[in-house]
This record gives sequence, structure tokens and C-alpha cells, in this order.
Amino acid sequence: MLGVLGGMGPLATADFFIKLVAATPANDDADHVPVLILSDPRVPPRPPAILGDGESPLPAMLARRDQLIKAGATVLAMPCNTAHFWFDELTTDCPVPFISIVEAACAEVAARAAPGDAVGLIATGATLAAHLYDSRLAAQGYQPKLPDTDTMTNIVLPAIRCVKQGDAAQGGRMLEPVVRRLREEGATVVLLACTETPLALDAIGSALREHCIDTTAALARACVAFWRAR
Amino acid sequence: MLGVLGGMGPLATADFFIKLVAATPANDDADHVPVLILSDPRVPPRPPAILGDGESPLPAMLARRDQLIKAGATVLAMPCNTAHFWFDELTTDCPVPFISIVEAACAEVAARAAPGDAVGLIATGATLAAHLYDSRLAAQGYQPKLPDTDTMTNIVLPAIRCVKQGDAAQGGRMLEPVVRRLREEGATVVLLACTETPLALDAIGSALREHCIDTTAALARACVAFWRAR
Repeated sequence: MLGVLGGMGPLATADFFIKLVAATPANDDADHVPVLILSDPRVPPRPPAILGDGESPLPAMLARRDQLIKAGATVLAMPCNTAHFWFDELTTDCPVPFISIVEAACAEVAARAAPGDAVGLIATGATLAAHLYDSRLAAQGYQPKLPDTDTMTNIVLPAIRCVKQGDAAQGGRMLEPVVRRLREEGATVVLLACTETPLALDAIGSALREHCIDTTAALARACVAFWRAR
Repeated sequence: MLGVLGGMGPLATADFFIKLVAATPANDDADHVPVLILSDPRVPPRPPAILGDGESPLPAMLARRDQLIKAGATVLAMPCNTAHFWFDELTTDCPVPFISIVEAACAEVAARAAPGDAVGLIATGATLAAHLYDSRLAAQGYQPKLPDTDTMTNIVLPAIRCVKQGDAAQGGRMLEPVVRRLREEGATVVLLACTETPLALDAIGSALREHCIDTTAALARACVAFWRAR
């Protein structure tokens, strides 16, 4: 059974579940991946802990990881990019495989961009500060292309907050010009490395979506592939 | 924590999760209902057991109910109408409250239809054979209005199968004329008493959706209300 360490945030976890079901070739219920999803929003927020002054969510995340394993999970996934800041701590001594959203997403970049290409990156300030994606993209030979500081502060972060507050369409209207600019500046693809951001663009039916890599969907596809190959 | 006995089917469970998040007034992640979702499609299929010759899913459902409680669930819900055939067996000796989709949906009927009104009912053959809704609607003073046997066999059941196989839009195109007919025959509202059916109509953006009661959404709203009032 796939265990999902979720709730960071709840809508992104639900979106992951939808994408997991959609990524599964199925003729009937029984063909689907058995899954146990713990969506517990009482995990302390990740950005303040990464950016400096907040309580660490790691103990809460470890407790929930163990709760999932105790309840029967034999492989784990966590549909939140920022939370992957603690991926090493979560996987050290973890008795079951843990599928990384960063690895799953970077594998999809490799399928769609050539070495040397610019790759746009939209993420929370914490994910960027932790260099979860840009250092890895650079190591794979891509040129990571980020929105500038003003755009991050005044557009990207407020757009993510809109989704968390239930107004995904407003988030999409704010985010779409940012994706367009990254494309105009030469990005082959734009990595939506915050699980709220595909929801924002989907809510407005953005045509730019086809140039984006959805990290949530990438994780879902990696989980289905893992399950079917086991 | 809300425990969700799901996987019957997986897409309907994911849809319940989305509707639970949407039904929650939230400013941030932390305002959401903590939830543990067990979506295990290995529960034996419900219709053959109700209609006569299939293995009973009750032992599997009881085991999963207890798995949820052991893992920390303090209240339960099950986003599948047909599975409520075993609701009495699931709630007898259950140490935590179990919110019924039938009660939640009938409460919404009462808010939108007057005594004596015709209420359309779209459900699986097994839900109809078990009289989960029609006897209750009749007891509340409504006239339940069902599609005829031919329509059930040739349209409603194949449409539900389409959703389970991942083609919700095809299900919607098949189902919409059935809802229209029930409305033309005088139904004040149409109860979508199979969790796959709102997905089908939503996939085609059906305008008839506003005349329907979505049992999945009704259950989600009842769960949020329960959680906030606890």
C-alpha cells in the first residue's frame, strides 16, 4: 500500500490523489493503487522553518511517516515540494522506499529539455532558498531560470496563498504572466515546483500549461510506475 | 481525525477529498480537517453481493474500519452510497461516530424539496435494490422517481462504468438525458446517489447539475460541520 504524507497543503494532497487515479490504467476499481493518505494540516508550516525562525516540522513529519508505516504503508510519497527540504532526514533509517517528488520531476525535465536549455522554475521562496531544484537542474546541465525577487514577493507567493485560501482562479490569473515571461526569456519548459501552482493555472484553463511540468503529476506517475513494477 | 473508508471507487474517494477541502472555510492549511483516507480497491465489489451471488465485502470493510480507528480516526465516513447497504453492521459496536451519506443527502433534499414533491433518484442497481434511498424518501413524504429498467440497464449502469474506467465525460453525455427526463417528469431535484454520477455530469459541465443533489458533496459538508462543532 502506498502511504501519502500529505496535508501540506490539503488541496495539493487531494490533487495528487486525483492525479494518481488518473495516471493508473484501470478497467475497474480493483486495478487502482491501494493508498493510505494522511492529510494532517497540523504539521508546523515549512517555509518559516527553512527561512530561519520557525518551529521545525521534522518531528511531526517523522511521527506521521511512522504512523503511515505502522498502518500498513509499504512505500511512501509526499506531495509537497518544500517539505522535501527534510527528505534526507525522512529517508534515513526509513524501513520502506520513499519516492522523491524532486527526482520524479527532474526525470520529466530530462525527457522534455536538452542539456544546456533554460528551465523555468516556479516555487515557494523556501524551496528556492533550499536550492531543492536549481542546484539539481544545474548539475543535470540545465540553466535554471527564476522569477526576480520583486515578482516572487509580489506575485508568486501571493498567488500560492490564494490557492491555499481556496481561490485557485485568482492565483492562476496572477501566475500566468510569470510563466509567460519565463517562456519569453527562453525557458524550454517551466517546472511548477510548488504543488499549488498547477491548480492555479488549471483553474483558469491556461494554455501555457502544456509548456509546464507539473511536479504533482510527475510524482503520481512515478508512484504508479513503482507500484506496477513491484 | 476524520477516517475515510474509501476506494469504492478510488476516483469517487478523491472527489470526496476535493469536496471536503472545498467545503472547509480556511485561511491557511491549519484550518482544514485532519483526515486519514484509506482507498483500498481490494474490497470485494458491492453490487454482486447485494444482488445475490457475490462474496460479501463486509469482513473487508470491517477490517478497514478498524484499521482506520487503530491509526487514529475519531469519526468515520464512507463516500460510497452502495456500501451503505452494510451501514448498520458497520456502526454496530463501532467505538466512534460514523456519518451516513444517506442521512447527509436526505437532509439536503429536505432543504430543497417540499413534502409531496417528486425527487429523482439516480443510483446503482444495487443501491436501488437495497432501497437505501427510495424507502427513506417515501418515509419523508417525497415521491421517489426512478429511471425505468431499460434506462437503468442500457444507460445509467454503463455510464457509471465509464467513470470507473476513467472516461467521465462519456458517462456525462450518457447520463445528462436521463436527468433531463426525470426533471421533465416533474422531479424538483435529482439525487445523484452514486458517487460516480456527479463526476460524470461535471466532466461535461452540465447545466442540469444545479437541479441535482450531489451525495458526495453532502457527505463532505456534513463531515466539515461535524468537525467544526465537535
